[in-house]
Amino acid sequence: MNFKMIFHILGKVLYITAILMLLPLIVAFIYGEKDTYIGFVVPILVLLSAGIPLEIFKPKNTLIFAKEGLTSVALAWIVTSLIGALPFYISRYIPSFLDSVFETVSGFTTTGASILTDVEMMPYSLLFWRSFTHWIGGMGVLVFILAVIPKTDMSMMHLLRAEAPGPVIGKLVAKMRLSARILYGIYVLLTVILIIFLVAGKMPFFDSVVTSFATAGTGGFGIKNNSIAFYDSAYIDIVLSIFMILFGVNFNIYYLMLLKNFKRAFKNDELRWYLGIIIISVVAVAINIYSIYPNIMESLRHSFFQVSSIITTTGFSTADFDQWPMFSKTAILLLMVIGSSAGSTGGGMKVSRIVILFKSVRNSIKSMANPRSVSSINLSGEIIDSKTEKGVLNYFALYMLIAVTSVVILSFDQYDGITNISAVLACLNNVGPGLRAAGPLGNYSGFSSVSKIILILNMLIGRLEIYPVIVLFSPLTWKRR
Amino acid sequence: MNFKMIFHILGKVLYITAILMLLPLIVAFIYGEKDTYIGFVVPILVLLSAGIPLEIFKPKNTLIFAKEGLTSVALAWIVTSLIGALPFYISRYIPSFLDSVFETVSGFTTTGASILTDVEMMPYSLLFWRSFTHWIGGMGVLVFILAVIPKTDMSMMHLLRAEAPGPVIGKLVAKMRLSARILYGIYVLLTVILIIFLVAGKMPFFDSVVTSFATAGTGGFGIKNNSIAFYDSAYIDIVLSIFMILFGVNFNIYYLMLLKNFKRAFKNDELRWYLGIIIISVVAVAINIYSIYPNIMESLRHSFFQVSSIITTTGFSTADFDQWPMFSKTAILLLMVIGSSAGSTGGGMKVSRIVILFKSVRNSIKSMANPRSVSSINLSGEIIDSKTEKGVLNYFALYMLIAVTSVVILSFDQYDGITNISAVLACLNNVGPGLRAAGPLGNYSGFSSVSKIILILNMLIGRLEIYPVIVLFSPLTWKRR
Repeated sequence: MNFKMIFHILGKVLYITAILMLLPLIVAFIYGEKDTYIGFVVPILVLLSAGIPLEIFKPKNTLIFAKEGLTSVALAWIVTSLIGALPFYISRYIPSFLDSVFETVSGFTTTGASILTDVEMMPYSLLFWRSFTHWIGGMGVLVFILAVIPKTDMSMMHLLRAEAPGPVIGKLVAKMRLSARILYGIYVLLTVILIIFLVAGKMPFFDSVVTSFATAGTGGFGIKNNSIAFYDSAYIDIVLSIFMILFGVNFNIYYLMLLKNFKRAFKNDELRWYLGIIIISVVAVAINIYSIYPNIMESLRHSFFQVSSIITTTGFSTADFDQWPMFSKTAILLLMVIGSSAGSTGGGMKVSRIVILFKSVRNSIKSMANPRSVSSINLSGEIIDSKTEKGVLNYFALYMLIAVTSVVILSFDQYDGITNISAVLACLNNVGPGLRAAGPLGNYSGFSSVSKIILILNMLIGRLEIYPVIVLFSPLTWKRR
Repeated sequence: MNFKMIFHILGKVLYITAILMLLPLIVAFIYGEKDTYIGFVVPILVLLSAGIPLEIFKPKNTLIFAKEGLTSVALAWIVTSLIGALPFYISRYIPSFLDSVFETVSGFTTTGASILTDVEMMPYSLLFWRSFTHWIGGMGVLVFILAVIPKTDMSMMHLLRAEAPGPVIGKLVAKMRLSARILYGIYVLLTVILIIFLVAGKMPFFDSVVTSFATAGTGGFGIKNNSIAFYDSAYIDIVLSIFMILFGVNFNIYYLMLLKNFKRAFKNDELRWYLGIIIISVVAVAINIYSIYPNIMESLRHSFFQVSSIITTTGFSTADFDQWPMFSKTAILLLMVIGSSAGSTGGGMKVSRIVILFKSVRNSIKSMANPRSVSSINLSGEIIDSKTEKGVLNYFALYMLIAVTSVVILSFDQYDGITNISAVLACLNNVGPGLRAAGPLGNYSGFSSVSKIILILNMLIGRLEIYPVIVLFSPLTWKRR
């Protein structure tokens, strides 16, 4: 293990996080929220005093391998979350440190699960920081570093690979620094466009900014107790629905569109399945909830919003979907697991993994009937090699093992089965709200400390796609040969 | 497709089933239950008049391949279930034909899920038939045929392969006819010993016989409304617990013990994991339910019985476990999925598949940290080849897809999420009782016809380990080349 290099990378992350934390401090100044100043100043000083020394001493041997890449990423996310929790804790707006960490991890991992019982009593600066963590976490802290550091070597690829979501790393990796910049460019642009759209819809400016952060990162922290339902505007609902879907698309597709390579952009199988699943789900749910709403347009509006919010794993709500009929609730849990596209800011299993899973299973049926037949898997015109296929099958099995183990541990708490299952799925897939006690009008404050720690791990595991977290905590990683 | 051979095999099955159905008819004579005579006579005549002609004309080409093996088995099970349902339907004791089929499929597949609201009003002959289907289905109709037919050729292996549970077919396959006879010999012997033990415990003779059938097949149909709780005997509970565990063991191990090859018998990894999971679960559940029972012995007795009943997928109950604390209920759902050993009469995923899944996932973590490392999977001292490993991963993915799809379809019914999830898991894993409306004191009568059909398919899919049923219904199978 190249520990020096791991610490060097960690130093960079801490140092960048300190700079990013200046923004909420500025917000605190603007709104004159003196009780939050110290909450931001302390972590900034901690980050700088730890980050700068670590960053300055660059080790001679900068070579890192997969193991170092995975552990650096997991470590960076955990340390940043612990320090990022300090503003909530020091300012006393969240009196428990564990709860502060829960809220911050939920932010960075773009989950949007909250322990706050009344979000509207929070000061602007903390609301800003809370939503800003979504925006930072959506694209990833390390991708940001790759975009800004002056020189990269190829071993840095392991960082991008560990942090970027999806089963196959796209061609963009080849030119890492450039691609990281392009990704962030698209990200900033889409966020700004959304802010403009929301302001045009008469949403207050502050609300527009933080809602856009939460949408761009597919996070879902709302700044009102009843989330987006507060604004009660069909325009805002539709704008957000569309942008949530846009942020759930693989960013490589936007890159291809910038290059005017529309043919290749739309030949993407994952995009077709993603949009197909959305359309079918919106129609099915709209029919299922039709009896609850005054007319079909209203039920379509809420169905469109909720399906978009859940499949992209954002987690905003315009309705208490916990009150919807059983089919809609089951569909919502299923959409949580499917999730958005690889290479987007969304969570979940990712549509491409589901498609590969389907095709692998179909081939297994074929070869069961005709043992001599050999079929390969095709995605967007490219053949998925058997190593990637097995990787996806293993990912699914590991995902299920983690989900089941988490539900078993949560079962020691006082909640019912649906609360436990939906809470784990909502956290593991970085959605946010689940059903029952963890539903859109509920929150996670009632869980025990053990359950909260499990859910925090679920959020990290979901955002980093399992392996970095598992490798960090695996004894095998730390065994000396 | 060798249709002639498929029909020939089907003929054999129908003909044997007719002979087996004479037994409940004899029971009807003994108890003078005249209202059930016609219910048995009609299906026996149907079976013989269809079976004998099909059986007599043996096709010249007896060669069959995997595809024919799979479809023959699925077809045989479905046809037998449809005709086996007639005694309930014709005698009017179950007025709905769909319900009669549900009950019969539940019997043959050794599920034990019932649509009866009052089982105690059923006549002896029907209760006997109901439990006897468990016994037939436990070891398999086709294995029985292989044991009795005078001559077999190697292509018959595809039948055994399709009907016998587990990921790897043991060495026994090589001498098929002999092994089928040995399997049935062990099966009959263990059943007789259990009957003697139960009679010794003062259980009435009829009850002892049918309870032994249901235990041997790991079926779980009770003949009392509150299942085994009716007898209220610690002795009976413990005897049944032990025998349920015995019938959940791979029968190859008993064969090895008969050969006095104890060393190899106990070197079996699946057996160790199976017993290990049972011990841990019994202790954990006993602690969790301790507060409900007067003393630790009582909570251990109920925990031991229920854990044995669920992991072996029998489904007997001595307590309404739906009233147990959340952890115990979650553990029960998990044990349903794990299931018993390959090559036993039990259902579920099978312990060996779970072990292979675990080891495959562990290797994927290793190779994620060290991409160049290559690890193989070892089970009972033998290396699992990558084809078997991928087969298990695909099996798990397909299993989950079927479970999730079934839960979505059931969600159109009026029940809550836990009822739906537990009903699907209880049927797919051939357990029987689930939770809530499908719990030990509930039954499946309240589900809609569509849900019942889905649950019937789940039971067949679970018993035949997915592929035969899927291949039978797959359009690919029936396409002419």
